[in-house]
Amino acid sequence: MAEKARVLLVGSGGIGTMTALNLEQGGLATVAAVLRSNYAMVKEKGFTIDSCDHGKLAEWKPSEVLPKVPDVTSGHEGSAKPFDYVIVTTKNVPDVPPTVADLIRPAVTPGHSVIVLIQNGLNIEKPLMAAFPDNICLSGVSLMGADELSPGHILQNDVDRLFIGPFLSDKLDGQKQIAAAEEFVRIYSASGKVQCSYQADVLFVRWRKLMYNAVWNPICALTDLDTTRFRLASDAQDPANPLDLLVRPAMNEIRAAAKASANVELPESLVESMVECDPMEIFCAPSMLQDRRKGRFIEYENILGEALREGERAGIAMPTIKCLYGLCKAVQWRTMELNGLVNAQKLMEARIS
Amino acid sequence: MAEKARVLLVGSGGIGTMTALNLEQGGLATVAAVLRSNYAMVKEKGFTIDSCDHGKLAEWKPSEVLPKVPDVTSGHEGSAKPFDYVIVTTKNVPDVPPTVADLIRPAVTPGHSVIVLIQNGLNIEKPLMAAFPDNICLSGVSLMGADELSPGHILQNDVDRLFIGPFLSDKLDGQKQIAAAEEFVRIYSASGKVQCSYQADVLFVRWRKLMYNAVWNPICALTDLDTTRFRLASDAQDPANPLDLLVRPAMNEIRAAAKASANVELPESLVESMVECDPMEIFCAPSMLQDRRKGRFIEYENILGEALREGERAGIAMPTIKCLYGLCKAVQWRTMELNGLVNAQKLMEARIS
Repeated sequence: MAEKARVLLVGSGGIGTMTALNLEQGGLATVAAVLRSNYAMVKEKGFTIDSCDHGKLAEWKPSEVLPKVPDVTSGHEGSAKPFDYVIVTTKNVPDVPPTVADLIRPAVTPGHSVIVLIQNGLNIEKPLMAAFPDNICLSGVSLMGADELSPGHILQNDVDRLFIGPFLSDKLDGQKQIAAAEEFVRIYSASGKVQCSYQADVLFVRWRKLMYNAVWNPICALTDLDTTRFRLASDAQDPANPLDLLVRPAMNEIRAAAKASANVELPESLVESMVECDPMEIFCAPSMLQDRRKGRFIEYENILGEALREGERAGIAMPTIKCLYGLCKAVQWRTMELNGLVNAQKLMEARIS
Repeated sequence: MAEKARVLLVGSGGIGTMTALNLEQGGLATVAAVLRSNYAMVKEKGFTIDSCDHGKLAEWKPSEVLPKVPDVTSGHEGSAKPFDYVIVTTKNVPDVPPTVADLIRPAVTPGHSVIVLIQNGLNIEKPLMAAFPDNICLSGVSLMGADELSPGHILQNDVDRLFIGPFLSDKLDGQKQIAAAEEFVRIYSASGKVQCSYQADVLFVRWRKLMYNAVWNPICALTDLDTTRFRLASDAQDPANPLDLLVRPAMNEIRAAAKASANVELPESLVESMVECDPMEIFCAPSMLQDRRKGRFIEYENILGEALREGERAGIAMPTIKCLYGLCKAVQWRTMELNGLVNAQKLMEARIS
């Protein structure tokens, strides 16, 4: 029997914990999970998991529970063994330090560790490829629904569907990058409980998910409405209803940007699918709404900012996305202030002096 | 000495109370003020006022303090004497009952009472003219800064500048409407403490104020930032800063709509004036932001909706205003839900059944 793949997982909230569980259940990997806010709780009592894919588990722990990203580079006694995979399931907030590259740097063995970014948005691979030019970087787009209800308590209420493909780097052998993606799909699929597939067209998968994320996420976060309430607030008899004013135009701007910037064809029928994709009865609160309600940073740069920049570079007018992006940028500044990263009083005094 | 004008004032928050005080101080009017949330407090102890125009006053009351709009129409014993003026300083929220017309109807004597709307936005006179075709209706646009800090405690921190003009009705004599506006200016100016002027071009005054109100109000309400913080959040070194993404485009959309729909010329230089008009040190929270923070209804229809409809009818694309309008409409729905006017659970069940 081959040796198990050694995985470091960074970001053990809902999606990350389910990713760790699924990998361990498959038997082809051992997972060291880096925990932050829930470390003390999980170290002592493990995770309590209620999963539509894996059933109910009490006091479950991955092979290793770590309070921070381990250092495999120093070579001193006690430094960790190299990781075959470094999977990142944190939010991606490039405008607030640390960057993903800085976060995982101690755990990346050059030329060996495969980096797997299970995160949303565009161009998230670029800083990683710059920081780790000798490492393969894979794209993971997850459609799973999973939340951490309280520290260590995970509810997975929508099945794990994961699309994997290589962020192709021209500095590395193309076939090796494809093979690495296929191998990760094999390891991730071994549990028999999830739907993990190889998707060569990473940009198609990412732009398609942006039709939801670049639209529903900021709109729900700014209005404090879940997608069910937002749809109920849109009276179809009113020609100026919020779905027609905002949601559909924004989705069509994403479609136009995908086509012009990446030659990605997102069929028009996807608009209605994305408008209606959340079951009405679940009152789905997209992650950015949850983050705003909790006073956390929102990941708007890779989701809205990159889509806007790609679209505008390709000559596409994206006024709705631009408006939402500007509002999100201001919201993020407010969160920075609440976290002590900027000081409004001092900035104001400097401005008027 | 001529008999004093008999005034009913509806809406006795910050602006309304200062309006009542100024009229009584001028000596040409007696004011009956209709109070709602602060009635009990003011009836007993009067207003405490700290005013940049009138100084500090304790236990001040207008001539009459009323808990609701009095009925002058029934003719029964105890019905009030007719009002020469009915001044409305409430918020204007036509999407939430009661309408302004329904609210003031008992106090309006047909063919006699002059209605004065000291409220923002466009087309606010239309329902009043329809409801009271024989009454003159005046436009009041106030640039005063005044807030009710707690029930009955009013702070006026920016001087009272009031622009009055007739909402000209073609069913009434034009000269009489102009004369009524001029007479109101005379009465309002009698205190010698305020800047009240006759402005024939009501549309110019209203569109100009919309450059601020249709832009700063929703943007601050949606981001939970005052105008100082929003400006600080906009790093001029960043070509995609929120002022350039949102504020300036939205103001230019209002300028284009004013020109195309009403032939109102708002000079381009007004954009920078309106961006910078609030002193940085006061951290100005526009009224819509205050309303959202307090969970109150926002007056977005006359401020954003009418501007959008006028502009689009005249062929102007207003994508930023449209986006802000759609977000505000959804926010209003949420406030309706929180006030029990809609029931999300029941609406959802009806939708899926």
